[in-house]
Amino acid sequence: MAIVLGPFQYGKAETRLVRIVRDTARHEITDLSVTTALRGAFGPAYLAGDQRDVLPTDTQKNSAYVWAKKLNPDPIETWGVALAHHFVDDVEPVESARIEIERFEWTRAVIDGAPHDHTFVRSGQEVRTAAVTLEAAATHVVQGFKDLTVLKSTGSHFKDFLVDEYTTLEPTDDRIMATALTARWRVTDPAVDLDWNAMYAGVRSAMLEQFATLESFALQQTLWHMGRAALEAYPEIAEIRLVAPNKHHFLVDFSRFDEANENEVFHADDRPYGLIQASAVREGAAAAGDAWWSFTPLA
Amino acid sequence: MAIVLGPFQYGKAETRLVRIVRDTARHEITDLSVTTALRGAFGPAYLAGDQRDVLPTDTQKNSAYVWAKKLNPDPIETWGVALAHHFVDDVEPVESARIEIERFEWTRAVIDGAPHDHTFVRSGQEVRTAAVTLEAAATHVVQGFKDLTVLKSTGSHFKDFLVDEYTTLEPTDDRIMATALTARWRVTDPAVDLDWNAMYAGVRSAMLEQFATLESFALQQTLWHMGRAALEAYPEIAEIRLVAPNKHHFLVDFSRFDEANENEVFHADDRPYGLIQASAVREGAAAAGDAWWSFTPLA
Amino acid sequence: MAIVLGPFQYGKAETRLVRIVRDTARHEITDLSVTTALRGAFGPAYLAGDQRDVLPTDTQKNSAYVWAKKLNPDPIETWGVALAHHFVDDVEPVESARIEIERFEWTRAVIDGAPHDHTFVRSGQEVRTAAVTLEAAATHVVQGFKDLTVLKSTGSHFKDFLVDEYTTLEPTDDRIMATALTARWRVTDPAVDLDWNAMYAGVRSAMLEQFATLESFALQQTLWHMGRAALEAYPEIAEIRLVAPNKHHFLVDFSRFDEANENEVFHADDRPYGLIQASAVREGAAAAGDAWWSFTPLA
Amino acid sequence: MAIVLGPFQYGKAETRLVRIVRDTARHEITDLSVTTALRGAFGPAYLAGDQRDVLPTDTQKNSAYVWAKKLNPDPIETWGVALAHHFVDDVEPVESARIEIERFEWTRAVIDGAPHDHTFVRSGQEVRTAAVTLEAAATHVVQGFKDLTVLKSTGSHFKDFLVDEYTTLEPTDDRIMATALTARWRVTDPAVDLDWNAMYAGVRSAMLEQFATLESFALQQTLWHMGRAALEAYPEIAEIRLVAPNKHHFLVDFSRFDEANENEVFHADDRPYGLIQASAVREGAAAAGDAWWSFTPLA
Repeated sequence: MAIVLGPFQYGKAETRLVRIVRDTARHEITDLSVTTALRGAFGPAYLAGDQRDVLPTDTQKNSAYVWAKKLNPDPIETWGVALAHHFVDDVEPVESARIEIERFEWTRAVIDGAPHDHTFVRSGQEVRTAAVTLEAAATHVVQGFKDLTVLKSTGSHFKDFLVDEYTTLEPTDDRIMATALTARWRVTDPAVDLDWNAMYAGVRSAMLEQFATLESFALQQTLWHMGRAALEAYPEIAEIRLVAPNKHHFLVDFSRFDEANENEVFHADDRPYGLIQASAVREGAAAAGDAWWSFTPLA
Repeated sequence: MAIVLGPFQYGKAETRLVRIVRDTARHEITDLSVTTALRGAFGPAYLAGDQRDVLPTDTQKNSAYVWAKKLNPDPIETWGVALAHHFVDDVEPVESARIEIERFEWTRAVIDGAPHDHTFVRSGQEVRTAAVTLEAAATHVVQGFKDLTVLKSTGSHFKDFLVDEYTTLEPTDDRIMATALTARWRVTDPAVDLDWNAMYAGVRSAMLEQFATLESFALQQTLWHMGRAALEAYPEIAEIRLVAPNKHHFLVDFSRFDEANENEVFHADDRPYGLIQASAVREGAAAAGDAWWSFTPLA
Repeated sequence: MAIVLGPFQYGKAETRLVRIVRDTARHEITDLSVTTALRGAFGPAYLAGDQRDVLPTDTQKNSAYVWAKKLNPDPIETWGVALAHHFVDDVEPVESARIEIERFEWTRAVIDGAPHDHTFVRSGQEVRTAAVTLEAAATHVVQGFKDLTVLKSTGSHFKDFLVDEYTTLEPTDDRIMATALTARWRVTDPAVDLDWNAMYAGVRSAMLEQFATLESFALQQTLWHMGRAALEAYPEIAEIRLVAPNKHHFLVDFSRFDEANENEVFHADDRPYGLIQASAVREGAAAAGDAWWSFTPLA
Repeated sequence: MAIVLGPFQYGKAETRLVRIVRDTARHEITDLSVTTALRGAFGPAYLAGDQRDVLPTDTQKNSAYVWAKKLNPDPIETWGVALAHHFVDDVEPVESARIEIERFEWTRAVIDGAPHDHTFVRSGQEVRTAAVTLEAAATHVVQGFKDLTVLKSTGSHFKDFLVDEYTTLEPTDDRIMATALTARWRVTDPAVDLDWNAMYAGVRSAMLEQFATLESFALQQTLWHMGRAALEAYPEIAEIRLVAPNKHHFLVDFSRFDEANENEVFHADDRPYGLIQASAVREGAAAAGDAWWSFTPLA
């Protein structure tokens, strides 16, 4: 049986691009890690080292820099679509482009009670992400975030689970539930005037509300309701995927000490951790195509 | 349009399991990170928090520990298949199991010129990996490694590439080529007596030979030939996937200094980096099923 | 010449302790990494393996947990002094104790416009730190933070520096200045009613004001003025030490492209980086003793 | 009381320098992270932003690159002394220089049974380190390594320790002992013909022998004997410092399962961990001066 070339892609990963808007004294900052990947007729490069149709990854990096000047990369989704169009429309051998972006947030330093014009403090909550796939049939934008670390100190149970001969876990009606959530939601062929920043804030808020207010009997349940709420809030979203490590907080055993531990002192454990994946899908929504064929590992 | 539950899985990630064989004074050590994921009829846990069919991730962890006693986890592939069978065969609601393993190598300390019986030094080359998917129709084993960091100091060109208005890279006929390679190759329904350790050594060796001896005109080309060589060496392998960051070593510009730099002094850059993905497929081989549906992010 | 035992210490590092105050429905959370080290007459353990005077590190961990119940660990400085006193006062062979603490901040999730009672989002700005050294002669508290990442997009120059034959850097009158600041300031024999949380906020604010408003001609100068401002604001502080990596943001060269880059598009580089250390000292302040003899590496 | 400038230093950290020797077809590779720091009359830069005496960190980086051409950086200690002399001898305001180096090892790929001329595999055991301090009175070289990860699966006890009311640990006569050792040893005013590579191999070997063969009753004891052995082997060494995290391997409790765990299955825990520091000193050896005033955090 013959051995043949299978799927491939290539590009430039993690270009750390910072864009300052300084048209007025009140500067704006957008801080990104940009990854670009090209898909197309690059077989000869693999099979024979023939580079004639290969746009160097160094050029892809330069293109990202120049596009950050041509178009302010905020929102990142619109900018990513524009950069993808450059590669597909302007570079002959490119059939499809994938743009993956991470955005790091900065907040203005507060000096003398007022937000400063040009001084910023990096805020380290979640990293906002976008992944654009521009292919012949469709444009897919996967908006999302990673590492939104949340915790609720009550309102979470874990009991009535399946027990076998290797089960030693005790059921509980009051535990800490914590996770570093990764969520990604897909919009296919988005409207030109879609307000991506508003959608991001809205989905994040809808998910946080479910996390906080749902009495939880399983992290699985919490995730489903977070995803469902996002799709209910925004009909443009075709599907959402969530990955949640269960960041275990174990109650420290005080039985041999001179104090009681009434759900007050916990050990935050590193490994192993439960890992839960969930997704919610809108029936009849546009097909995903290659929207989930990621270039760098997701999550 | 209705919102419905999409694909899901859950499990225990990164159980750090160390197994000592101490039947004689000459101990053996196997050092693993084990991740288990279950797939099956767990919809009620997501939709309603109903845990009756959910085997806790804590129990999955315990099961891995006990199985490490029942069967020495070397080779990891055979052990992973056995653990997967336990979950699918012994736990009613489980329809399919995924076992992902990382193996960290130790070598015996050399004391007075001889390998010591029970003292080991962690060797930090590549991490060997295995991913077992046991489903109704087939058993898939994806053997592989990550972060095999290799470098050749000559024998690599990069020239005659596509040039556009954003291309500033100079062609070269002699550059350093370096990568931290991730490779994964699939065997479906392996023979019971397949010698996994021999296959691992053989594939690694065949790939290293290509890396070293092929005059390279593109990292793409080198990857393809590494993958092709693996499939040629082992007909059991259905396909192989490679991910290679191009770890750029930039020649330092000495033009303003009192010394010449004749391909001798380089800066090893961190980011951005080229990222190349390739695969080789055996035509007519068994279908992949869910073999590539990973639980933790690959690479 | 004889070989003798030199300085030593031992303890438990990175106990990940989470304390919930749940006396009312409005919970409070304190999330810590606690490290304890003991110094004293432990020579026989080193020289002969005699453990009779050695309190196990496991016991040190337990002690931290129990003390988190006895006394809410907020502020961390007061709690650290109490835990140090336990070791020195209650454990016979202990002559001096060192407690190093990292505090990770959480903010309340905002649900329906209101901060939630028991749901928190991890905020990832700087990590607050404390290091307590309790010795016979004095109690030292080193308050501080690490990784406060700040950036100003103008107001920073670098020019008129020393030039030698290896200097290729161009002077500039307008650059981005960014750093991930570590700062530590010492208070010896603090007053019992010292408001540590207020001091922390006050020092942080005084330093940020200098960073933002000082027209900078060197990161060295900025650091000195940040440190000086802290000591001026709080006469209790004997000295302050600052470590600042210069997180270089390089202007991308657009000279060959169809756009101009007027201080708008930058590459945030990883390595190498300038590294600047500064300190400000109050003349005549109490001596430092072992206050700076850290157990885990600082910064 | 006046506020005055305290100790300071500044430099370039983590220059990732790779040097290839290619005088013959059999290439040699030296892969380094180089950090340089200058100490001297730089007060005006701090107090007033006056840079006239400040050699830019960018120039320090360039100097390291050029010196890697002038002198092959193997052994790293000799090269570090030479680079330090450049800064102190050739740059007027520099009074003292500190050079910190990490060296990453590569081994030749074995192709067709023979070590290849120009293909290398990164070997990931310990990182070799050197820290040179050149000051007016002396030249100090601190040779060492970090993260030498070693494990012995028997021959380690922990018992007869101090017990207080918070002690729950059980004594044991057979445990796994594992650590990721950092060791640093000082030679002051080394002979010009000192064979640094031989010393490195010799000290490493002497320490491994102690780790393997000493029946251990405490990690403290093991460390002391490792340090003592190093000083006995090399009279040039004035002192040695060791830092050893106790990488706990906990025996998994099988009491509720259908198997016995006879010291065979362990959980390798992440945090917290015991942390032990030890040092051995040669009486009457040359004083340390600023040899231990590190620029980047040690260990």
